[in-house]
Amino acid sequence: MTKQAKTAITPTRAEDYPEWYQQVVKASDMAERSPVRGCMVIKPWGYSLWENIMRVLDDMFKETGVKNAYFPLFIPLSFFEKEAEHVEGFAKECAVVTHHRLEKGLDGSLKPAGMLNEPLIVRPTSETIIGDSFSKWVSSYRDLPILVNQWANVVRWEMRTRLFLRTSEFLWQEGHTVHASEEEAVERTHMMLDIYARLAEEYLAMPVIKGRKTASERFPGAVDTLCIEAMMQDRKGLQSGTSHFLGQNFARASEIRFQSAEETEEYAWTTSWGASTRLIGGLVMTHGDDDGIILPPKIASSHVVLMPIIRKPQDRTNVMAFTENLAKELREKFYHHRRLEVEIDDRDIGGARGWEWIKKGIPLRVEIGPRDIANNSVYVGRRDRGHRDKASLARDHFVGEITNILDEMQQTLFERALSFRKAHTISIDKKKSFYEFFTPGNQEKPEIHGGFALSHWCGSDRCESKIKEDLSVTILCIPLNNQTEKGECICCGKPGDGQVVFAKAY
Amino acid sequence: MTKQAKTAITPTRAEDYPEWYQQVVKASDMAERSPVRGCMVIKPWGYSLWENIMRVLDDMFKETGVKNAYFPLFIPLSFFEKEAEHVEGFAKECAVVTHHRLEKGLDGSLKPAGMLNEPLIVRPTSETIIGDSFSKWVSSYRDLPILVNQWANVVRWEMRTRLFLRTSEFLWQEGHTVHASEEEAVERTHMMLDIYARLAEEYLAMPVIKGRKTASERFPGAVDTLCIEAMMQDRKGLQSGTSHFLGQNFARASEIRFQSAEETEEYAWTTSWGASTRLIGGLVMTHGDDDGIILPPKIASSHVVLMPIIRKPQDRTNVMAFTENLAKELREKFYHHRRLEVEIDDRDIGGARGWEWIKKGIPLRVEIGPRDIANNSVYVGRRDRGHRDKASLARDHFVGEITNILDEMQQTLFERALSFRKAHTISIDKKKSFYEFFTPGNQEKPEIHGGFALSHWCGSDRCESKIKEDLSVTILCIPLNNQTEKGECICCGKPGDGQVVFAKAY
Repeated sequence: MTKQAKTAITPTRAEDYPEWYQQVVKASDMAERSPVRGCMVIKPWGYSLWENIMRVLDDMFKETGVKNAYFPLFIPLSFFEKEAEHVEGFAKECAVVTHHRLEKGLDGSLKPAGMLNEPLIVRPTSETIIGDSFSKWVSSYRDLPILVNQWANVVRWEMRTRLFLRTSEFLWQEGHTVHASEEEAVERTHMMLDIYARLAEEYLAMPVIKGRKTASERFPGAVDTLCIEAMMQDRKGLQSGTSHFLGQNFARASEIRFQSAEETEEYAWTTSWGASTRLIGGLVMTHGDDDGIILPPKIASSHVVLMPIIRKPQDRTNVMAFTENLAKELREKFYHHRRLEVEIDDRDIGGARGWEWIKKGIPLRVEIGPRDIANNSVYVGRRDRGHRDKASLARDHFVGEITNILDEMQQTLFERALSFRKAHTISIDKKKSFYEFFTPGNQEKPEIHGGFALSHWCGSDRCESKIKEDLSVTILCIPLNNQTEKGECICCGKPGDGQVVFAKAY
Repeated sequence: MTKQAKTAITPTRAEDYPEWYQQVVKASDMAERSPVRGCMVIKPWGYSLWENIMRVLDDMFKETGVKNAYFPLFIPLSFFEKEAEHVEGFAKECAVVTHHRLEKGLDGSLKPAGMLNEPLIVRPTSETIIGDSFSKWVSSYRDLPILVNQWANVVRWEMRTRLFLRTSEFLWQEGHTVHASEEEAVERTHMMLDIYARLAEEYLAMPVIKGRKTASERFPGAVDTLCIEAMMQDRKGLQSGTSHFLGQNFARASEIRFQSAEETEEYAWTTSWGASTRLIGGLVMTHGDDDGIILPPKIASSHVVLMPIIRKPQDRTNVMAFTENLAKELREKFYHHRRLEVEIDDRDIGGARGWEWIKKGIPLRVEIGPRDIANNSVYVGRRDRGHRDKASLARDHFVGEITNILDEMQQTLFERALSFRKAHTISIDKKKSFYEFFTPGNQEKPEIHGGFALSHWCGSDRCESKIKEDLSVTILCIPLNNQTEKGECICCGKPGDGQVVFAKAY
């Protein structure tokens, strides 16, 4: 415990950020690696975050008229090939089903048997299979728009994986819409991006930049990919949700046509948009500290843990009665449309108990001992503050104020993350400074690069790849609210439009 | 429309029940076949039923301490082989992933590439892969019980498929629990079966018999399989949820061991239990009539559709205002923990509009024309009654009574289904009568067999298979509340315990 009294997670963020991430996820009991290559097991504490994210997003989607549906897990190879860029983009990372049963071989061991006529791809995304349904559902402009979403698992084979951030199988939602006009489809693309930004900022307390991907970073087959980008504590960027305007590309590939009001035959305009369990990785890296993860109250798996302190057996009845009574009262309260979730932890395991909840990132820890009960008070630790920073509060005051305290914590986490991003985002217009900014050894923390650089770019693939090659730095996005004046490309010096966001990225 | 004025679905149930099922599902717009062999597309109207079922079950699970988690889609072949009966039971219907990318072959077409060292099975159920996690999570009796559930897709390759009832991919939940004692595991098996029975009877209005499967019908690897069985309108049985006591079989296969309070090393006791989108097929076949499906209000995708009748353009403003005002007021009401869902359908498509909603099974259809508005009344059709049976109700009376009307409909549907089951369930103790009961041509409707026969059975596999061979009749279950006296086996005449339920089954 002496060690833990310094920091609960080894190494610290400053010592080794990638390893800190692995350790902090492990210590939180949110997820673990599975014996299946690249796949993770999402444990209950991690899954409940996903449940909360699903609930918030699902409500926001439905408010805009979106309905949920479900499409097949498998995509026939021939469907997948319909859009040339699309198949090119995913061919290298597909799980392929080739057989439909197992049979004992001559050596007595089971072998794949019943070979399929056409291999099936486990969906890495569903544009082509959903497009096939759309082509049947749409015949007239009266059938439009179609607005559907599915909550599903997808598979993109990964060789190097990290829990939540990059796994071969992950959970996500993918929305797919069909429109009669380009304007309406573009508007929908922005509307859904705004929903992702609201989820990120209002619920995950994760400030994001809304932007547009460059051609080289676009979704395979899209005309335009919008994204939200967040800064992690190692100052790298994390793409946290994307919304694609697909033009008529997938409509042509899947023959989604309709008769317009003017009785002409037209290809429809489609969009798709997705957010995944990766958001949980973003949450960890945005708010976690050297003691573990910190859950924003509005999305937390649980809000408060009550820890009765029973030093003498004869105290038990009294302390537990006070604890259960408090729990009951708290559970009747609502916090942002759901009931307060209260844990009671009466395990007799010493200081390890409090540390476990710190590592799990629960917003409030409440200790209840005979002395607190005598004073009708509780001893409260807030996860957004240091682990020693605890305060005695009158019980009824605590009950009355708890939702305000949680709101204040939510606000603090957001502002802290926003300050961090601001502190590590700078405008750079000299190539030399730009290279220094992204070169380890030139910063106070040598292993961490500078952060986000706002610089001009001429728009060429050449300059984009040169910088990627030299520095492993990409254009995170071209911000949508880009108000800056024209300037010289940070790479070649030719004229460029407003500044774009350069950063190392996950 | 003249044809539709008789029945909306062709053929009727009496004419051709299996074909009626296909047509009624299609007409309801709930689901459709996909181009992927054996997989279905669940359309929004169908998926919302699944969302409602998920919500009800999830709440009931959580009340018993179950938490959700998520485990990998893929199961390595070697894991799958750990339990001998288990692999035997599923080997013939597995989707097998053998490659992890696509590569252009010499002929320029894409082919599977990157062969895996070990084939991966797309989960048909997850005992073995979840067992692996459990083996790491459990070391002491203090870690028990573990109570987890996952909402997931599973794949069991089927050659002959029917929407919802039997598809290669389906959606379900699978719960998995680990216990320190046999009694506790057995108790959990029954507890979860009771939850399925509550879902079926209280929400789906589908009366069920709780029972136990015979050895030949058990889940592969289980010690005991409990089930709920419902009677469809063709008098066949539909297994609608199962709960398995797995003994220590899977604990041995996956090495789930713990140190007991007495410091001995023990294998744990496990259970698993699941219900799937098959329930939607059951719903259709329990309540549907020759005009389409009928949705029980407590689980309905939507509760009421308002259909403004606008004969003259100048009426529009007035009729729509009345309609929207009514919708607003209804949407503020709650019905069994969720808000009333109200559709407004102002399409100008004549009688097809009302028929569409009848076929979709929405509980209440409300017509609103200028005359109704003048009387401050609405014209209401209930889906549990004939399509001509409509009544004018004072608007405010309708608003005040709507939840009572829905409850009454829910009750009517349940009672109707229960009466149907009772009418077609008989005790039979003569072999000749038994064979007649299940032989087409001896009933008033020659194409439909008799129903459920309650008869004695000696307990032997031989008699069970003889009857299956002769009549395609199986033992649906041995009812849990079996109070009948001993009697003679319907097949061999030897002594048997209480009666069991014989029926043709889906």
